[in-house]
Formats: sequence, structure tokens, C-alpha cells
Amino acid sequence: MPVALLGYGTVGAAVNRLLTESAEDIERATGHRLRVVKALVREAGKERDYPAAAGVLTTDVAELLDDPSIAVVAEVMGGVEPAGGYVLDFLRRGKHVVSANKQLIARRGAELFAAASAAGVQLRFEASVCAAIPVIKVLRESLVVTNVHGVLGIVNGTTNFVLTEMEGGKSYADALAEAQRLGYAEADPTDDVSGADAAAKMAILATVAFKSRVDLADVKFDGITEIDSLEVAAARQLDMVIRLVGAARLVDGQVDVRVQPAFVDKQHPLAKVDGAFNAVMLQGDAIREITLEGPGAGGVETASAVIADITSVIGTMGNGFLQNDAAWRELPLLPEGESRSPFYVRLHVEDRPGALARVADGLAQHEISIARLLQQPNGDGATLHVVTHEAPSGALQAALQALDELPDVHSRSVPRPVISDRGVTELGWA
Amino acid sequence: MPVALLGYGTVGAAVNRLLTESAEDIERATGHRLRVVKALVREAGKERDYPAAAGVLTTDVAELLDDPSIAVVAEVMGGVEPAGGYVLDFLRRGKHVVSANKQLIARRGAELFAAASAAGVQLRFEASVCAAIPVIKVLRESLVVTNVHGVLGIVNGTTNFVLTEMEGGKSYADALAEAQRLGYAEADPTDDVSGADAAAKMAILATVAFKSRVDLADVKFDGITEIDSLEVAAARQLDMVIRLVGAARLVDGQVDVRVQPAFVDKQHPLAKVDGAFNAVMLQGDAIREITLEGPGAGGVETASAVIADITSVIGTMGNGFLQNDAAWRELPLLPEGESRSPFYVRLHVEDRPGALARVADGLAQHEISIARLLQQPNGDGATLHVVTHEAPSGALQAALQALDELPDVHSRSVPRPVISDRGVTELGWA
Repeated sequence: MPVALLGYGTVGAAVNRLLTESAEDIERATGHRLRVVKALVREAGKERDYPAAAGVLTTDVAELLDDPSIAVVAEVMGGVEPAGGYVLDFLRRGKHVVSANKQLIARRGAELFAAASAAGVQLRFEASVCAAIPVIKVLRESLVVTNVHGVLGIVNGTTNFVLTEMEGGKSYADALAEAQRLGYAEADPTDDVSGADAAAKMAILATVAFKSRVDLADVKFDGITEIDSLEVAAARQLDMVIRLVGAARLVDGQVDVRVQPAFVDKQHPLAKVDGAFNAVMLQGDAIREITLEGPGAGGVETASAVIADITSVIGTMGNGFLQNDAAWRELPLLPEGESRSPFYVRLHVEDRPGALARVADGLAQHEISIARLLQQPNGDGATLHVVTHEAPSGALQAALQALDELPDVHSRSVPRPVISDRGVTELGWA
Repeated sequence: MPVALLGYGTVGAAVNRLLTESAEDIERATGHRLRVVKALVREAGKERDYPAAAGVLTTDVAELLDDPSIAVVAEVMGGVEPAGGYVLDFLRRGKHVVSANKQLIARRGAELFAAASAAGVQLRFEASVCAAIPVIKVLRESLVVTNVHGVLGIVNGTTNFVLTEMEGGKSYADALAEAQRLGYAEADPTDDVSGADAAAKMAILATVAFKSRVDLADVKFDGITEIDSLEVAAARQLDMVIRLVGAARLVDGQVDVRVQPAFVDKQHPLAKVDGAFNAVMLQGDAIREITLEGPGAGGVETASAVIADITSVIGTMGNGFLQNDAAWRELPLLPEGESRSPFYVRLHVEDRPGALARVADGLAQHEISIARLLQQPNGDGATLHVVTHEAPSGALQAALQALDELPDVHSRSVPRPVISDRGVTELGWA
């Protein structure tokens, strides 16, 4: 069964190596022997991690497009273009495509899946989210009868590593430098630290979980660049840690997807995800909650997911199973401001009689009630660490704007959602 | 697509309910509308959680066997017989079978899979291990090119609940009574507390992970009935907790599968699995480590896994994909005594000069070296809490037998394997 690769970098070379080394395992699982026959590269002469056989590398995409023997194409080149155009070309020619490209799937999913459906071929994308953690397959094939209404995850290892290091006392700059030194962060870390990488993954996860297209543009995201030692210390005082959390929720038939730094109770499973690992919690009616955790990046890990997709394509070819666009319905987005959460906010206030009462009253006027409060002296004023009960984000914003007008309030932090510890939900046990 | 059920208890009724309620989701995923047309029961008139339509329940298995329209049979009756005989009958008649029955798969897997292969049909068994946690599918379909060499898990919720309660101060008897009151333990809890239930699950997981048949008889298991408050307290003093851990390892081409109470470092992920939840860690070359966590039991959860298997059968019918016996090779078992681990043991010794030296020397003569030692006064003697470095269990047993002969040693505990904290393995990151 001839396979073609678009791209032959770290992931592509690892796909070729694993296909070669595991040929026997794959043949036992699928009945087919897989072999990389062509790989599109920009430069054929470059040195490679795992060299391809003679004649495999080519700079001419026509050599792949015009080879009728190729049944499955793995896109491991990254970037939206030219990858997107190539993927469309192959789909239209009736080739199954497997992609590891989160930006492509998150930005141009609708168009690509339409082309796949029209041609009657599969487009699989397990490797585009959290590498070898098989969250797409589990959502589509294992949780088919559970109404998944929540996906909560740490889906970016770089930022999780930085935040874990900051808990250990490092500054943001030092933690990021350490991540770069270890190869967890790129020289230009913008895509990770801005939350954009996590947002693309959450768009894909929400689409599959809720069966309604969520584009990258539908995801509100914020990064970790503003997190400082003060905020890390504030979280610690409340027995919490800061995590960049992706949250996708189905609320009364409306979809809400966001990526934000959150204050997470130390007893919560997401607080226990350390370093560059990823974890995704899937919440649904029939399953309560299933968590998948593992390395969310890496060349070999990504290659493992690419090959799992290739073997799944082969195993289901012609059966019409699960290969169509997951998004068969159109759900509206939850209106801005209606997303509910408990929140943390830090206020620097004048230390004078009645200041706390006026702050509490200002919150209460917007129906924000206080769940926890910690007051500390701070210079000639006081710092208030406020954790609210669950409230709509819009009401919180309105309340905070009103507080900003109070002469008692000198400054305040950006509010952060809070993820509390909760016991195991006691549903359906028998 | 007509489906038949063997059994219509809690799981069977939940399968019927979910198939009815999720008919549209299933049709979108598979292209087929699934419907329960027959269900074999012992007593047709009994009241049911979710009543079946008129004419569905029957006490006559021939009504199912002789119905040529039935394509897939779900065995949700439990017990080795008559379930095993029925499953064989259906496989031989060319029906795909899905089973939630761990005892059946663990005890008679070889025979059942041979019958399925001979008839060219599938036998799937996701629901037999950890309910809705999709560990079988992930091992077979997602980790196809990763050489999985270790499976470490908490696969019995009852015992994990009891151990968690004992950490909170309850006696074993009180914790078990609480588990029974909440429905986590049965009136006769033997199967759970003896480790037999976990052993059956580990036999199935090891078979799939290592692709070599592991029968229930190949699994060494021990339960939690001997765990007392003293041992729980000893673990706490070492910053550990006690967990009933299933461990399957591939060691130099030999298989070792066991279920034992273990001392687990509080920082280790398995120590963080609380209450009745299950967690399975899969360790392999290409993935480092992937952990799946969730509720490991429950009627609806199990039904969800049964239906996932049914839809997977439908999606891969006729493609010959992954439905054959996972065990295509025969690996030997690791010889008894060669299983390596660090161990914990507690000794009550005479408090006299040289006693500690004689104990340490006795261990050293069998090449057991001490990693941690905690000595406490205890009446007219002393208690030694010993944590060894990694050693073969046979050498440890020999050393402990030698210590039993020393006049200094009054008594000692059963040794327990120790699972230490370890950082994230740094492999293959790119």
C-alpha cells in the first residue's frame, strides 16, 4: 500500500522510520504493508534524520499527484499554504489525506471536509491535536453515544512548562529561556505564549466534540505573557496554580470556546499536569469524565498519530465509517459576556474605613457575590484577593468597571477564571 | 441494523436506552440505524430499568440464534457460563460479538478468538476493561506502531475507594462498609478485594498490549484484605499512599503481569487517582507515556463502551481491520522471582547494639541495598521502615527469609513494591 508524504522534516522522517520498523505490526493489524514511495520536499539534497530511499524525495508535487498507485497522503509540512492547496488537490483526486496541521484544519476545515465528502475520501487529523494523545479517535469512535458537553484541557506544553517553572520561582523571562534551551519553545515563541496554538487545537476539539464547526476566529484566547511572579504568588496563597486552560462548553445549545490563564485549585486534576505534558478532560452524559494525558508534542509522537490515522483509513476504507465532516449541525456561539465561571481578581485599595464595604457593594450591585476574600496590607493601602462565586463574565466586567470609578480602588488585575476542585460526580454508578 | 442482546440487566437496559436515544448520532457516524430486536433474559416478566419493546425479551436463545437478520450480538449477561457457550454459538454462526465480560475474555479468550477468526467475524471487548475508558481501542488502533512495553494501572474502583477512605482514617472494615453503602462494593466483595477482578482486567490489557496471550492463571495477584491502619500510617510517614496497582511489563521478551498493593509516592500520578476512579498508564517507545483516567464501572458507562464496539464493528465490517485475535505471538512468562522493583518492608527488631547492622548485612548478602530507612522506638524494641533499591523479588524473599532467622528480628510485614515519583521522561521531543 503506497503512501506519500507532503513534507519530510522531523515528523515526516519519523513517519518513514516507524512505517519501516513497524511494517510487520501494521501488516498484522491492517492486512497491508505500508511503504513511503514519494515525499515532497523543498530541497532534495538536504541531510535528513532518517534518510529516505533513493528516488523517494522530490521537489515536484506533480510526481505525487500523477502517481495513481498512491492511496493515502500524509501532510506533515505545516503552514496554511501551500499545504492547504496541496491537500485540496489530493482530496479532489480521490486520495485519502491524513494531516498533522492544526492551523490548516482549524482555519480551513469547512472547505477541506467538503472536498473530502465530495470525493468520497477520508480526511483524518488526529496528529493535529496533542500529538499521540488519541483524543480525536476517542471522541469520534468511542464516545459516539455520549453527549459530550465539555472539553477542558491543557493543550500547549510550552506554556505549561513555563508556568510550572514559574511556580518553582523563576521569572517569566527565565522560564521561557529555559523552555527554549530544552527545545520546548521555539526561537519565536509567539504562537505558543499568545494562546494562538492552544486556540487552534480547541477549535478542532470543539468541532469534533459538539459536531458543529468552530473556526479559529470563534475562539477567544489570551496568553501567558502578562503573568508575573506577583500573580503566581497570589495563586499560591489561595492554594491554586495558574494554568493556560482551554475550555469548550455547550451551554443551552450554544457553543463557548476560550483559552485563558486560569486559577486552578491544587487538588484539581489539571493542576497536577506538570511540565510539557498535555491533558484533555472530556465530560459527557454517559461517561461522566474521561481524561487523556500524555506528551502533546514531539516528532515521533506526532508520527505515531499520523500512522494511526493512516491505518484507520485503511481499516475503514469503503465502509463510509466516521470519515465525513464531524460538523453536521450549526450551533450558535454563546453571546459574549454570558460565559459563566467563578473569577479571581486582585484589587489594590485605600486602607480606610468602609473601603471593603464599598467594593463588596459595587460587586453586589452587579450580582457578583464573593466566595473567598484575602486581605493583606500593601504599603499604605491593602491588597484584596477576591474569588467570586460563578457569574457571567459580562456582569463581572461591568462590576469591575464600576469599581474602577471608586476612589478607594487604586488598581486592579485582569480577572481570571477559577477552576475549583470537585469530587467525582456521582452519576450512573451501578 | 438489527442488534441482539444477551442479558437485559442494568447494562443491557442502558444499551437499549442509549441506542434508542442516540439513534441519529449513530446513523450519522456509521450510516446505519441500530435497533435492539431481541434480548435473551432468564425471566421475561421482570420489571426493568428501561423496558424493552413488546416481543424483544425472550427466554429462548434459539430465537436469537435462528434470526438471520441479526448482524451483531452484545453479550452483557456476565459469568463464564452459559455466556461463553452462547458467544461461541453466535461466532460460529457468523455473527459479530461484542462482550462486556472480563472473566469470559480473560479465561477463555484463546478459544473465543479462534472461533471468531475461523468464522471471519469480529469479537470486540472494550467494555470488559474499565467500562467507558477506551483503553482497548487506543492500544489496538492508536498505538499500532508504538512498542508498548508497560501498562500500569488502577483498574478496580472498589479497592481504590476503600484505600482512599483508609487514608482518611477509616478502618478497613468501615471503609468497605461505606463502599457497600454507596454501591461501589457488592454484598460479597471477594472478587474485588482479593484482586481477582483487577487480575482479569490486567490479563486482557497485557494480551492486547504485548500481543501474546496472558491468561488469568498467568497473573499473580494479591488483594487488600491484609492492609491495616498500621500499614497506611507507615506509607504516610514515607510520603506515600497505598494503591492496588496492576503492572504488566515486557522484560527482555518475557511477560510479567501482577496485581499487588503498592506503596506509591504521593507525587506519582497513580497516587492522585482518588475514590472509585480508574487510571491506566501506557508506556511505549513512540509515545513515552499516555494515561487514560475515568470511571471504571457503571451501567451507563459500560453500555457506552458496548455501543462504541458495535459501531466500530459496523464501521470496519468486511475490511478485516483489527478484529482478529490481538495475540499473534507467544512470549514466555518472566520466571518467578525475576520481577524487579524497589520494595518496602517493615521489621520489628530488638533494640540492642548491632541489630541494625545485622539486618543491613543480611540484606546486603542477597545484594539488596537500602534506599531509605526510618527507625522508630516501639515498646521495648524498634520498628524499621525499609525501602530498598530496585531488586529482583526472589532475592528479596531470600533475604527476608534469612532475616527471619535472626534473633534480632521479632516480626516483619509482607514486602510491598514501591512506585516512585519520576519526572517526565525526556525522549523524542522536537
